[in-house]
Amino acid sequence: MEQRIKGTTGLMALIGSPVGHSGSPAMYNFSFRYHNLDYAYMAFDIKEDQVPAALDAIRLFKMRGANVTMPCKNEVAKHMDELSPAARIIGAVNTIVNEDGKLVGHITDGIGFVRNLKEHGVDVKGKKMVVLGAGGAATAIQVQCALDGAESISIFNPKDPFFARAESTAEKLSKETPDCKVSVFDLADEAKLKEEVANADILVNATLAGMKPHEELTLIKDKSMFRPDLVVADVVYNPAETRMVKEAKEAGCKLAIGGKGMLLWQGAAAYKLYTGLEMPTAEYQKFQEENENK
Amino acid sequence: MEQRIKGTTGLMALIGSPVGHSGSPAMYNFSFRYHNLDYAYMAFDIKEDQVPAALDAIRLFKMRGANVTMPCKNEVAKHMDELSPAARIIGAVNTIVNEDGKLVGHITDGIGFVRNLKEHGVDVKGKKMVVLGAGGAATAIQVQCALDGAESISIFNPKDPFFARAESTAEKLSKETPDCKVSVFDLADEAKLKEEVANADILVNATLAGMKPHEELTLIKDKSMFRPDLVVADVVYNPAETRMVKEAKEAGCKLAIGGKGMLLWQGAAAYKLYTGLEMPTAEYQKFQEENENK
Repeated sequence: MEQRIKGTTGLMALIGSPVGHSGSPAMYNFSFRYHNLDYAYMAFDIKEDQVPAALDAIRLFKMRGANVTMPCKNEVAKHMDELSPAARIIGAVNTIVNEDGKLVGHITDGIGFVRNLKEHGVDVKGKKMVVLGAGGAATAIQVQCALDGAESISIFNPKDPFFARAESTAEKLSKETPDCKVSVFDLADEAKLKEEVANADILVNATLAGMKPHEELTLIKDKSMFRPDLVVADVVYNPAETRMVKEAKEAGCKLAIGGKGMLLWQGAAAYKLYTGLEMPTAEYQKFQEENENK
Repeated sequence: MEQRIKGTTGLMALIGSPVGHSGSPAMYNFSFRYHNLDYAYMAFDIKEDQVPAALDAIRLFKMRGANVTMPCKNEVAKHMDELSPAARIIGAVNTIVNEDGKLVGHITDGIGFVRNLKEHGVDVKGKKMVVLGAGGAATAIQVQCALDGAESISIFNPKDPFFARAESTAEKLSKETPDCKVSVFDLADEAKLKEEVANADILVNATLAGMKPHEELTLIKDKSMFRPDLVVADVVYNPAETRMVKEAKEAGCKLAIGGKGMLLWQGAAAYKLYTGLEMPTAEYQKFQEENENK
Protein backbone atom coordinates (compact mmCIF):
# COMPACT_ATOMS: atom_id res chain seq x y z
CA MET A 1 0.00 0.00 0.00
CA GLU A 2 2.73 2.45 0.91
CA GLN A 3 4.01 2.34 -2.63
CA ARG A 4 0.64 2.88 -4.27
CA ILE A 5 -1.15 5.77 -2.55
CA LYS A 6 0.41 9.15 -3.23
CA GLY A 7 -0.65 12.79 -3.20
CA THR A 8 -2.49 12.49 -6.51
CA THR A 9 -4.39 9.28 -5.72
CA GLY A 10 -8.17 9.61 -6.11
CA LEU A 11 -10.60 8.16 -3.59
CA MET A 12 -13.46 5.85 -4.49
CA ALA A 13 -15.78 4.23 -2.00
CA LEU A 14 -18.61 1.99 -1.01
CA ILE A 15 -21.29 3.73 1.06
CA GLY A 16 -24.03 2.05 3.08
CA SER A 17 -24.41 0.34 6.43
CA PRO A 18 -22.98 -2.02 7.49
CA VAL A 19 -19.96 -2.15 5.18
CA GLY A 20 -17.18 -3.44 7.45
CA HIS A 21 -17.29 -6.94 5.98
CA SER A 22 -17.50 -5.86 2.35
CA GLY A 23 -15.13 -7.50 -0.08
CA SER A 24 -15.37 -4.55 -2.48
CA PRO A 25 -12.29 -2.64 -1.19
CA ALA A 26 -10.06 -5.68 -1.75
CA MET A 27 -11.49 -6.37 -5.22
CA TYR A 28 -11.40 -2.77 -6.42
CA ASN A 29 -7.93 -2.05 -5.08
CA PHE A 30 -6.62 -5.18 -6.74
CA SER A 31 -8.19 -4.05 -10.01
CA PHE A 32 -6.81 -0.52 -9.77
CA ARG A 33 -3.38 -1.92 -9.18
CA TYR A 34 -3.80 -4.39 -12.03
CA HIS A 35 -4.72 -1.57 -14.44
CA ASN A 36 -2.24 0.84 -12.90
CA LEU A 37 -5.02 3.33 -12.10
CA ASP A 38 -4.31 5.99 -9.47
CA TYR A 39 -7.32 5.29 -7.24
CA ALA A 40 -7.84 3.82 -3.79
CA TYR A 41 -11.13 2.28 -2.71
CA MET A 42 -12.51 2.37 0.83
CA ALA A 43 -15.80 1.67 2.60
CA PHE A 44 -17.71 4.22 4.70
CA ASP A 45 -20.56 3.46 7.06
CA ILE A 46 -23.31 5.80 5.89
CA LYS A 47 -26.91 5.75 7.12
CA GLU A 48 -29.85 6.87 5.00
CA ASP A 49 -30.08 10.31 6.61
CA GLN A 50 -26.36 10.90 5.93
CA VAL A 51 -26.73 10.40 2.17
CA PRO A 52 -26.84 14.11 1.21
CA ALA A 53 -23.69 14.74 3.27
CA ALA A 54 -21.96 11.75 1.67
CA LEU A 55 -22.79 13.08 -1.80
CA ASP A 56 -21.34 16.46 -0.79
CA ALA A 57 -18.15 14.66 0.25
CA ILE A 58 -18.00 12.79 -3.09
CA ARG A 59 -18.09 16.15 -4.87
CA LEU A 60 -15.71 17.86 -2.42
CA PHE A 61 -13.05 15.14 -2.60
CA LYS A 62 -13.55 14.85 -6.39
CA MET A 63 -14.14 11.14 -6.01
CA ARG A 64 -14.60 9.42 -9.38
CA GLY A 65 -17.58 7.60 -7.96
CA ALA A 66 -19.03 5.37 -5.29
CA ASN A 67 -20.90 2.12 -4.96
CA VAL A 68 -24.04 2.21 -2.90
CA THR A 69 -25.43 -0.59 -0.79
CA MET A 70 -28.29 -1.00 1.69
CA PRO A 71 -29.96 1.03 3.13
CA CYS A 72 -28.97 3.98 0.92
CA LYS A 73 -29.91 2.90 -2.64
CA ASN A 74 -33.30 4.62 -2.80
CA GLU A 75 -32.22 7.76 -0.95
CA VAL A 76 -29.23 8.22 -3.27
CA ALA A 77 -31.54 8.02 -6.31
CA LYS A 78 -33.44 11.09 -5.01
CA HIS A 79 -30.33 13.27 -5.04
CA MET A 80 -28.63 12.48 -8.36
CA ASP A 81 -28.08 15.12 -11.05
CA GLU A 82 -28.92 12.48 -13.64
CA LEU A 83 -30.18 8.87 -13.61
CA SER A 84 -29.73 6.00 -16.03
CA PRO A 85 -33.06 4.74 -17.47
CA ALA A 86 -33.03 1.68 -15.17
CA ALA A 87 -32.14 3.73 -12.08
CA ARG A 88 -34.89 6.21 -12.90
CA ILE A 89 -37.57 3.53 -13.37
CA ILE A 90 -36.47 1.56 -10.31
CA GLY A 91 -35.79 4.59 -8.13
CA ALA A 92 -32.58 3.06 -6.82
CA VAL A 93 -28.87 3.57 -7.43
CA ASN A 94 -25.96 1.24 -6.67
CA THR A 95 -23.31 3.08 -8.70
CA ILE A 96 -22.63 6.81 -8.63
CA VAL A 97 -20.35 8.16 -11.35
CA ASN A 98 -18.98 11.66 -10.81
CA GLU A 99 -18.75 13.29 -14.25
CA ASP A 100 -16.80 16.45 -13.36
CA GLY A 101 -19.11 17.33 -10.49
CA LYS A 102 -22.31 16.00 -12.06
CA LEU A 103 -23.40 12.89 -10.18
CA VAL A 104 -24.96 10.26 -12.45
CA GLY A 105 -26.78 7.34 -10.81
CA HIS A 106 -26.81 3.85 -12.30
CA ILE A 107 -28.08 0.50 -11.11
CA THR A 108 -26.05 -2.45 -12.32
CA ASP A 109 -27.84 -5.46 -10.76
CA GLY A 110 -30.00 -5.96 -13.85
CA ILE A 111 -27.03 -5.28 -16.13
CA GLY A 112 -25.10 -7.97 -14.25
CA PHE A 113 -27.93 -10.45 -14.65
CA VAL A 114 -28.25 -9.84 -18.39
CA ARG A 115 -24.47 -9.97 -18.88
CA ASN A 116 -24.23 -13.24 -16.97
CA LEU A 117 -26.86 -14.82 -19.23
CA LYS A 118 -25.02 -13.48 -22.27
CA GLU A 119 -21.77 -15.05 -21.04
CA HIS A 120 -23.71 -18.33 -21.04
CA GLY A 121 -24.90 -17.74 -24.60
CA VAL A 122 -28.38 -16.44 -23.82
CA ASP A 123 -29.70 -13.07 -25.03
CA VAL A 124 -32.83 -11.80 -23.26
CA LYS A 125 -33.90 -9.93 -26.40
CA GLY A 126 -37.18 -11.37 -27.74
CA LYS A 127 -37.46 -13.85 -24.88
CA LYS A 128 -40.48 -14.73 -22.75
CA MET A 129 -39.53 -14.62 -19.08
CA VAL A 130 -40.98 -15.64 -15.74
CA VAL A 131 -39.43 -13.79 -12.81
CA LEU A 132 -40.22 -14.83 -9.25
CA GLY A 133 -40.11 -11.99 -6.73
CA ALA A 134 -40.63 -8.26 -6.41
CA GLY A 135 -37.75 -7.16 -4.17
CA GLY A 136 -34.74 -5.10 -5.16
CA ALA A 137 -32.94 -7.73 -7.26
CA ALA A 138 -36.20 -8.88 -8.88
CA THR A 139 -37.21 -5.35 -9.84
CA ALA A 140 -33.75 -4.59 -11.24
CA ILE A 141 -33.88 -7.73 -13.39
CA GLN A 142 -37.42 -7.04 -14.60
CA VAL A 143 -36.61 -3.46 -15.58
CA GLN A 144 -33.29 -4.25 -17.27
CA CYS A 145 -34.71 -7.17 -19.24
CA ALA A 146 -37.62 -4.99 -20.41
CA LEU A 147 -35.14 -2.25 -21.45
CA ASP A 148 -33.02 -4.87 -23.22
CA GLY A 149 -35.93 -6.10 -25.34
CA ALA A 150 -37.50 -9.09 -23.57
CA GLU A 151 -40.81 -9.94 -25.28
CA SER A 152 -42.75 -10.56 -22.07
CA ILE A 153 -42.16 -10.77 -18.33
CA SER A 154 -44.52 -12.59 -16.00
CA ILE A 155 -43.89 -11.61 -12.41
CA PHE A 156 -44.97 -13.99 -9.65
CA ASN A 157 -45.04 -12.89 -6.04
CA PRO A 158 -46.99 -13.80 -2.92
CA LYS A 159 -49.77 -11.40 -1.96
CA ASP A 160 -47.46 -9.70 0.54
CA PRO A 161 -46.55 -5.99 0.75
CA PHE A 162 -44.16 -6.41 -2.22
CA PHE A 163 -47.03 -7.43 -4.51
CA ALA A 164 -47.96 -3.77 -4.98
CA ARG A 165 -44.35 -3.10 -5.99
CA ALA A 166 -44.61 -5.71 -8.73
CA GLU A 167 -47.80 -4.05 -9.96
CA SER A 168 -46.10 -0.67 -9.87
CA THR A 169 -43.14 -2.04 -11.89
CA ALA A 170 -45.57 -3.48 -14.45
CA GLU A 171 -47.38 -0.16 -14.71
CA LYS A 172 -44.16 1.83 -15.15
CA LEU A 173 -42.85 -0.58 -17.78
CA SER A 174 -46.13 -0.41 -19.71
CA LYS A 175 -45.23 3.23 -20.34
CA GLU A 176 -41.45 2.99 -20.54
CA THR A 177 -41.11 -0.19 -22.58
CA PRO A 178 -44.54 -0.72 -24.23
CA ASP A 179 -43.15 -3.49 -26.50
CA CYS A 180 -42.52 -5.71 -23.47
CA LYS A 181 -45.69 -7.23 -22.01
CA VAL A 182 -45.41 -7.31 -18.22
CA SER A 183 -47.99 -9.17 -16.11
CA VAL A 184 -48.23 -9.79 -12.38
CA PHE A 185 -49.60 -12.98 -10.81
CA ASP A 186 -50.09 -14.42 -7.34
CA LEU A 187 -47.36 -16.97 -6.61
CA ALA A 188 -50.00 -19.06 -4.80
CA ASP A 189 -51.70 -19.68 -8.18
CA GLU A 190 -49.77 -22.82 -9.08
CA ALA A 191 -51.74 -23.61 -12.19
CA LYS A 192 -50.98 -20.15 -13.58
CA LEU A 193 -47.30 -20.50 -12.72
CA LYS A 194 -47.14 -23.83 -14.53
CA GLU A 195 -48.88 -22.34 -17.57
CA GLU A 196 -46.57 -19.32 -17.73
CA VAL A 197 -43.39 -21.35 -17.25
CA ALA A 198 -44.56 -23.74 -19.99
CA ASN A 199 -44.69 -20.75 -22.37
CA ALA A 200 -41.46 -19.15 -21.14
CA ASP A 201 -37.87 -19.26 -22.43
CA ILE A 202 -36.29 -18.17 -19.16
CA LEU A 203 -37.29 -18.79 -15.53
CA VAL A 204 -35.65 -16.66 -12.85
CA ASN A 205 -35.80 -17.00 -9.08
CA ALA A 206 -35.16 -13.46 -7.80
CA THR A 207 -36.25 -14.17 -4.21
CA LEU A 208 -34.14 -15.35 -1.29
CA ALA A 209 -35.69 -18.83 -1.41
CA GLY A 210 -32.96 -21.45 -1.20
CA MET A 211 -30.37 -19.19 0.41
CA LYS A 212 -28.40 -20.47 3.41
CA PRO A 213 -29.55 -21.51 5.97
CA HIS A 214 -32.73 -22.42 4.07
CA GLU A 215 -31.15 -24.58 1.36
CA GLU A 216 -34.21 -26.87 1.34
CA LEU A 217 -36.46 -24.14 -0.08
CA THR A 218 -37.48 -23.87 -3.74
CA LEU A 219 -40.43 -22.07 -5.25
CA ILE A 220 -40.68 -24.63 -8.09
CA LYS A 221 -42.27 -27.55 -6.31
CA ASP A 222 -43.48 -29.27 -9.48
CA LYS A 223 -40.32 -30.53 -11.16
CA SER A 224 -42.25 -31.35 -14.32
CA MET A 225 -42.04 -27.62 -15.11
CA PHE A 226 -38.37 -28.08 -16.05
CA ARG A 227 -37.91 -28.86 -19.74
CA PRO A 228 -34.57 -29.19 -21.52
CA ASP A 229 -34.94 -25.91 -23.44
CA LEU A 230 -35.97 -23.84 -20.37
CA VAL A 231 -33.18 -21.56 -19.15
CA VAL A 232 -33.21 -21.48 -15.33
CA ALA A 233 -31.40 -18.78 -13.37
CA ASP A 234 -31.17 -17.99 -9.68
CA VAL A 235 -30.03 -14.77 -7.99
CA VAL A 236 -29.06 -16.73 -4.85
CA TYR A 237 -25.30 -17.38 -4.83
CA ASN A 238 -24.92 -18.99 -1.42
CA PRO A 239 -25.01 -21.96 -1.93
CA ALA A 240 -23.53 -21.70 -5.42
CA GLU A 241 -26.17 -24.18 -6.59
CA THR A 242 -29.58 -23.82 -4.99
CA ARG A 243 -32.05 -26.66 -4.77
CA MET A 244 -33.91 -25.10 -7.71
CA VAL A 245 -30.80 -25.03 -9.89
CA LYS A 246 -29.86 -28.59 -8.93
CA GLU A 247 -33.30 -29.95 -9.65
CA ALA A 248 -33.44 -28.10 -12.98
CA LYS A 249 -30.16 -29.73 -13.97
CA GLU A 250 -31.36 -33.14 -12.82
CA ALA A 251 -34.51 -32.64 -14.90
CA GLY A 252 -32.34 -32.09 -17.97
CA CYS A 253 -32.39 -28.29 -18.35
CA LYS A 254 -29.47 -27.43 -20.61
CA LEU A 255 -28.74 -24.22 -18.73
CA ALA A 256 -29.34 -23.74 -15.01
CA ILE A 257 -27.14 -21.17 -13.28
CA GLY A 258 -26.67 -19.76 -9.79
CA GLY A 259 -26.32 -16.12 -8.77
CA LYS A 260 -22.54 -15.86 -8.49
CA GLY A 261 -22.11 -14.68 -12.06
CA MET A 262 -24.71 -11.94 -11.67
CA LEU A 263 -22.95 -10.68 -8.54
CA LEU A 264 -19.62 -10.70 -10.34
CA TRP A 265 -20.93 -8.94 -13.43
CA GLN A 266 -22.88 -6.26 -11.56
CA GLY A 267 -19.61 -5.35 -9.85
CA ALA A 268 -17.74 -5.45 -13.13
CA ALA A 269 -20.39 -3.23 -14.72
CA ALA A 270 -19.77 -0.58 -12.06
CA TYR A 271 -16.01 -0.83 -12.61
CA LYS A 272 -16.54 -0.32 -16.32
CA LEU A 273 -18.69 2.76 -15.69
CA TYR A 274 -15.90 4.27 -13.55
CA THR A 275 -12.90 3.32 -15.63
CA GLY A 276 -14.08 2.20 -19.07
CA LEU A 277 -12.19 -1.05 -18.48
CA GLU A 278 -13.18 -4.67 -17.89
CA MET A 279 -12.67 -5.62 -14.25
CA PRO A 280 -9.95 -8.30 -14.01
CA THR A 281 -12.28 -10.68 -12.19
CA ALA A 282 -10.54 -13.90 -13.20
CA GLU A 283 -7.16 -12.50 -12.16
CA TYR A 284 -8.60 -11.37 -8.83
CA GLN A 285 -10.06 -14.80 -8.19
CA LYS A 286 -6.66 -16.33 -8.88
CA PHE A 287 -4.99 -13.80 -6.58
CA GLN A 288 -7.45 -14.64 -3.80
CA GLU A 289 -6.87 -18.36 -4.16
CA GLU A 290 -3.11 -17.88 -4.06
CA ASN A 291 -3.37 -15.78 -0.92
CA GLU A 292 -5.73 -18.22 0.79
CA ASN A 293 -3.16 -20.94 0.28
CA LYS A 294 -0.44 -18.92 1.92
CA MET B 1 -2.24 -2.08 -1.25
CA GLU B 2 -4.90 -4.59 -2.22
CA GLN B 3 -4.03 -6.65 0.81
CA ARG B 4 -4.20 -3.75 3.25
CA ILE B 5 -7.39 -1.77 2.63
CA LYS B 6 -10.54 -3.58 3.67
CA GLY B 7 -14.08 -2.68 4.67
CA THR B 8 -13.03 -1.60 8.15
CA THR B 9 -10.06 0.56 7.13
CA GLY B 10 -10.27 4.14 8.40
CA LEU B 11 -9.40 7.12 6.24
CA MET B 12 -6.93 9.82 7.23
CA ALA B 13 -5.91 12.70 5.03
CA LEU B 14 -3.92 15.77 4.22
CA ILE B 15 -6.06 18.76 3.24
CA GLY B 16 -4.87 21.95 1.56
CA SER B 17 -3.95 23.13 -1.92
CA PRO B 18 -1.90 22.06 -3.75
CA VAL B 19 -1.26 18.62 -2.26
CA GLY B 20 -0.52 16.45 -5.31
CA HIS B 21 3.22 16.40 -4.67
CA SER B 22 2.98 15.78 -0.93
CA GLY B 23 5.10 13.01 0.50
CA SER B 24 2.76 12.58 3.47
CA PRO B 25 0.59 9.79 1.99
CA ALA B 26 3.66 7.61 1.35
CA MET B 27 5.12 8.28 4.80
CA TYR B 28 1.87 7.77 6.72
CA ASN B 29 0.85 4.64 4.82
CA PHE B 30 4.28 3.15 5.42
CA SER B 31 3.91 3.91 9.13
CA PHE B 32 0.40 2.45 9.37
CA ARG B 33 1.63 -0.70 7.71
CA TYR B 34 4.67 -0.79 9.98
CA HIS B 35 2.46 -0.55 13.10
CA ASN B 36 -0.25 -2.74 11.60
CA LEU B 37 -2.83 0.02 12.01
CA ASP B 38 -6.02 -0.21 9.95
CA TYR B 39 -5.82 3.24 8.34
CA ALA B 40 -5.15 4.57 4.86
CA TYR B 41 -3.88 8.09 4.23
CA MET B 42 -4.75 10.21 1.20
CA ALA B 43 -4.44 13.84 0.11
CA PHE B 44 -7.38 16.04 -0.91
CA ASP B 45 -7.15 19.37 -2.68
CA ILE B 46 -9.15 21.69 -0.44
CA LYS B 47 -9.35 25.46 -0.82
CA GLU B 48 -9.96 27.81 2.09
CA ASP B 49 -13.67 28.24 1.36
CA GLN B 50 -14.11 24.46 1.32
CA VAL B 51 -12.78 24.02 4.86
CA PRO B 52 -16.18 23.74 6.61
CA ALA B 53 -17.28 21.09 4.08
CA ALA B 54 -14.02 19.18 4.56
CA LEU B 55 -14.54 19.19 8.34
CA ASP B 56 -18.07 17.84 7.79
CA ALA B 57 -16.56 15.04 5.70
CA ILE B 58 -14.00 14.25 8.43
CA ARG B 59 -16.87 13.80 10.87
CA LEU B 60 -19.10 11.92 8.40
CA PHE B 61 -16.42 9.42 7.39
CA LYS B 62 -15.30 9.10 11.04
CA MET B 63 -11.76 9.93 9.99
CA ARG B 64 -9.32 9.71 12.91
CA GLY B 65 -7.84 12.98 11.82
CA ALA B 66 -6.27 15.10 9.13
CA ASN B 67 -3.17 17.13 8.52
CA VAL B 68 -3.70 20.65 7.28
CA THR B 69 -1.42 22.58 4.96
CA MET B 70 -1.56 25.93 3.18
CA PRO B 71 -3.85 27.78 2.61
CA CYS B 72 -6.24 26.20 5.14
CA LYS B 73 -4.39 26.38 8.48
CA ASN B 74 -6.01 29.58 9.77
CA GLU B 75 -9.48 28.80 8.47
CA VAL B 76 -9.43 25.36 10.11
CA ALA B 77 -8.55 26.95 13.46
CA LYS B 78 -11.81 28.95 13.32
CA HIS B 79 -13.95 25.82 13.14
CA MET B 80 -12.46 23.48 15.74
CA ASP B 81 -14.42 22.24 18.75
CA GLU B 82 -11.26 22.62 20.83
CA LEU B 83 -7.74 24.01 20.29
CA SER B 84 -4.41 23.15 21.85
CA PRO B 85 -2.83 26.13 23.68
CA ALA B 86 -0.37 26.73 20.81
CA ALA B 87 -3.07 26.45 18.13
CA ARG B 88 -5.28 28.85 20.06
CA ILE B 89 -2.55 31.47 20.53
CA ILE B 90 -1.32 31.16 16.94
CA GLY B 91 -4.77 30.84 15.40
CA ALA B 92 -3.59 28.07 13.08
CA VAL B 93 -3.96 24.30 12.96
CA ASN B 94 -1.90 21.72 11.08
CA THR B 95 -3.25 18.62 12.82
CA ILE B 96 -6.91 17.81 13.42
CA VAL B 97 -7.62 14.94 15.80
CA ASN B 98 -11.16 13.57 15.74
CA GLU B 99 -11.98 12.52 19.31
CA ASP B 100 -15.27 10.67 18.72
CA GLY B 101 -16.75 13.51 16.72
CA LYS B 102 -15.08 16.34 18.64
CA LEU B 103 -12.47 17.96 16.40
CA VAL B 104 -9.39 19.11 18.32
CA GLY B 105 -6.91 21.35 16.52
CA HIS B 106 -3.17 21.21 17.18
CA ILE B 107 -0.14 22.85 15.60
CA THR B 108 2.97 20.74 15.66
CA ASP B 109 5.56 22.94 13.90
CA GLY B 110 6.77 24.38 17.19
CA ILE B 111 6.61 20.98 18.86
CA GLY B 112 8.78 19.62 16.06
CA PHE B 113 11.31 22.41 16.51
CA VAL B 114 11.56 21.88 20.26
CA ARG B 115 11.77 18.11 19.87
CA ASN B 116 14.53 18.41 17.29
CA LEU B 117 16.59 20.56 19.66
CA LYS B 118 15.96 18.04 22.43
CA GLU B 119 17.19 15.21 20.20
CA HIS B 120 20.40 17.26 19.91
CA GLY B 121 20.65 17.61 23.68
CA VAL B 122 19.24 21.13 24.00
CA ASP B 123 16.23 21.99 26.18
CA VAL B 124 14.62 25.37 25.48
CA LYS B 125 13.51 25.65 29.11
CA GLY B 126 15.23 28.60 30.79
CA LYS B 127 17.00 29.62 27.59
CA LYS B 128 17.40 33.06 26.04
CA MET B 129 16.46 32.92 22.36
CA VAL B 130 16.71 35.13 19.28
CA VAL B 131 14.23 34.16 16.56
CA LEU B 132 14.45 35.77 13.13
CA GLY B 133 11.11 36.10 11.32
CA ALA B 134 7.41 36.50 11.97
CA GLY B 135 5.82 34.12 9.44
CA GLY B 136 4.01 30.87 10.17
CA ALA B 137 7.02 28.79 11.20
CA ALA B 138 8.53 31.66 13.20
CA THR B 139 5.32 32.29 15.13
CA ALA B 140 4.87 28.57 15.85
CA ILE B 141 8.42 28.37 17.23
CA GLN B 142 8.04 31.52 19.32
CA VAL B 143 4.78 30.36 20.88
CA GLN B 144 5.90 26.79 21.56
CA CYS B 145 9.20 27.88 23.09
CA ALA B 146 7.35 30.36 25.33
CA LEU B 147 4.91 27.60 26.38
CA ASP B 148 7.84 25.27 27.02
CA GLY B 149 9.55 27.69 29.40
CA ALA B 150 12.07 29.74 27.40
CA GLU B 151 13.29 32.63 29.58
CA SER B 152 13.18 35.24 26.82
CA ILE B 153 12.56 35.50 23.09
CA SER B 154 13.82 38.39 20.99
CA ILE B 155 12.05 38.53 17.66
CA PHE B 156 13.76 40.29 14.74
CA ASN B 157 11.87 41.08 11.56
CA PRO B 158 12.09 43.70 8.82
CA LYS B 159 9.53 46.49 9.04
CA ASP B 160 7.31 44.71 6.54
CA PRO B 161 3.63 43.71 6.97
CA PHE B 162 4.70 40.77 9.16
CA PHE B 163 6.21 43.12 11.75
CA ALA B 164 2.75 43.75 13.21
CA ARG B 165 2.30 39.99 13.53
CA ALA B 166 5.46 39.75 15.60
CA GLU B 167 4.15 42.53 17.85
CA SER B 168 0.84 40.75 18.16
CA THR B 169 2.59 37.50 19.10
CA ALA B 170 4.59 39.36 21.76
CA GLU B 171 1.42 40.91 23.14
CA LYS B 172 -0.42 37.60 23.30
CA LEU B 173 2.51 35.86 24.96
CA SER B 174 2.82 38.62 27.57
CA LYS B 175 -0.59 37.45 28.79
CA GLU B 176 -0.36 33.72 28.07
CA THR B 177 3.19 33.10 29.23
CA PRO B 178 4.10 36.09 31.45
CA ASP B 179 7.29 34.36 32.67
CA CYS B 180 8.77 34.50 29.18
CA LYS B 181 9.95 37.97 28.13
CA VAL B 182 9.18 38.54 24.45
CA SER B 183 10.53 41.60 22.61
CA VAL B 184 10.30 42.68 18.98
CA PHE B 185 13.06 44.48 17.08
CA ASP B 186 13.68 45.76 13.57
CA LEU B 187 15.98 43.39 11.72
CA ALA B 188 17.63 46.44 10.12
CA ASP B 189 19.00 47.39 13.57
CA GLU B 190 22.24 45.43 13.27
CA ALA B 191 23.72 46.69 16.50
CA LYS B 192 20.67 45.52 18.44
CA LEU B 193 20.79 42.14 16.72
CA LYS B 194 24.43 41.75 17.66
CA GLU B 195 23.69 42.70 21.27
CA GLU B 196 20.75 40.28 21.60
CA VAL B 197 22.61 37.39 19.99
CA ALA B 198 25.56 38.04 22.32
CA ASN B 199 23.19 37.51 25.28
CA ALA B 200 21.34 34.56 23.75
CA ASP B 201 21.72 30.80 24.16
CA ILE B 202 19.90 29.90 20.93
CA LEU B 203 19.71 31.72 17.56
CA VAL B 204 17.02 30.61 15.12
CA ASN B 205 16.49 31.57 11.51
CA ALA B 206 12.77 31.09 10.94
CA THR B 207 12.65 32.96 7.62
CA LEU B 208 13.11 31.58 4.09
CA ALA B 209 16.55 33.22 3.79
CA GLY B 210 19.05 30.72 2.41
CA MET B 211 16.46 28.44 0.81
CA LYS B 212 17.03 27.24 -2.75
CA PRO B 213 17.48 28.95 -5.17
CA HIS B 214 18.82 31.68 -2.87
CA GLU B 215 21.50 29.65 -1.10
CA GLU B 216 23.76 32.71 -0.91
CA LEU B 217 21.43 34.49 1.53
CA THR B 218 22.00 34.69 5.28
CA LEU B 219 20.59 37.14 7.78
CA ILE B 220 23.71 36.86 9.96
CA LYS B 221 26.17 38.92 7.97
CA ASP B 222 28.57 39.53 10.86
CA LYS B 223 30.15 36.12 11.49
CA SER B 224 31.67 37.35 14.73
CA MET B 225 28.24 36.81 16.27
CA PHE B 226 28.87 33.06 16.25
CA ARG B 227 30.45 31.83 19.46
CA PRO B 228 31.16 28.17 20.37
CA ASP B 229 28.39 27.98 22.99
CA LEU B 230 25.70 29.58 20.77
CA VAL B 231 23.20 27.03 19.48
CA VAL B 232 22.26 27.89 15.88
CA ALA B 233 19.17 26.42 14.23
CA ASP B 234 17.59 26.97 10.83
CA VAL B 235 14.05 26.11 9.69
CA VAL B 236 15.25 25.91 6.06
CA TYR B 237 15.84 22.27 5.07
CA ASN B 238 16.65 22.71 1.39
CA PRO B 239 19.66 22.81 1.23
CA ALA B 240 20.17 20.61 4.29
CA GLU B 241 22.88 23.03 5.42
CA THR B 242 22.18 26.70 4.76
CA ARG B 243 24.92 29.26 4.46
CA MET B 244 24.10 30.39 8.01
CA VAL B 245 24.49 26.87 9.40
CA LYS B 246 27.71 26.31 7.48
CA GLU B 247 29.23 29.59 8.65
CA ALA B 248 28.19 28.90 12.25
CA LYS B 249 29.97 25.55 12.10
CA GLU B 250 33.03 27.12 10.52
CA ALA B 251 33.05 29.72 13.31
CA GLY B 252 33.16 26.90 15.86
CA CYS B 253 29.57 26.70 17.07
CA LYS B 254 29.22 23.31 18.75
CA LEU B 255 25.66 22.90 17.52
CA ALA B 256 24.37 24.29 14.22
CA ILE B 257 21.45 22.39 12.66
CA GLY B 258 19.29 22.64 9.55
CA GLY B 259 15.50 22.36 9.30
CA LYS B 260 15.15 18.71 8.26
CA GLY B 261 14.82 17.48 11.83
CA MET B 262 12.08 19.98 12.64
CA LEU B 263 10.14 18.89 9.55
CA LEU B 264 10.52 15.27 10.53
CA TRP B 265 9.51 15.80 14.13
CA GLN B 266 6.50 17.97 13.39
CA GLY B 267 5.19 15.12 11.24
CA ALA B 268 6.03 12.59 13.92
CA ALA B 269 4.25 14.73 16.52
CA ALA B 270 1.05 14.60 14.43
CA TYR B 271 1.40 10.82 14.06
CA LYS B 272 1.74 10.50 17.80
CA LEU B 273 -1.38 12.60 18.36
CA TYR B 274 -3.36 10.28 16.04
CA THR B 275 -1.98 6.93 17.14
CA GLY B 276 -0.13 7.37 20.42
CA LEU B 277 2.91 5.82 18.72
CA GLU B 278 6.30 7.08 17.59
CA MET B 279 6.41 7.44 13.82
CA PRO B 280 8.96 4.94 12.40
CA THR B 281 10.89 7.71 10.67
CA ALA B 282 14.25 5.94 10.52
CA GLU B 283 12.63 2.81 9.09
CA TYR B 284 10.80 4.89 6.50
CA GLN B 285 14.02 6.62 5.47
CA LYS B 286 15.64 3.22 5.04
CA PHE B 287 12.65 1.99 3.02
CA GLN B 288 12.86 5.03 0.75
CA GLU B 289 16.57 4.56 0.15
CA GLU B 290 16.07 0.89 -0.67
CA ASN B 291 13.33 1.74 -3.16
CA GLU B 292 15.32 4.52 -4.77
CA ASN B 293 18.09 2.04 -5.49
CA LYS B 294 15.73 -0.35 -7.24
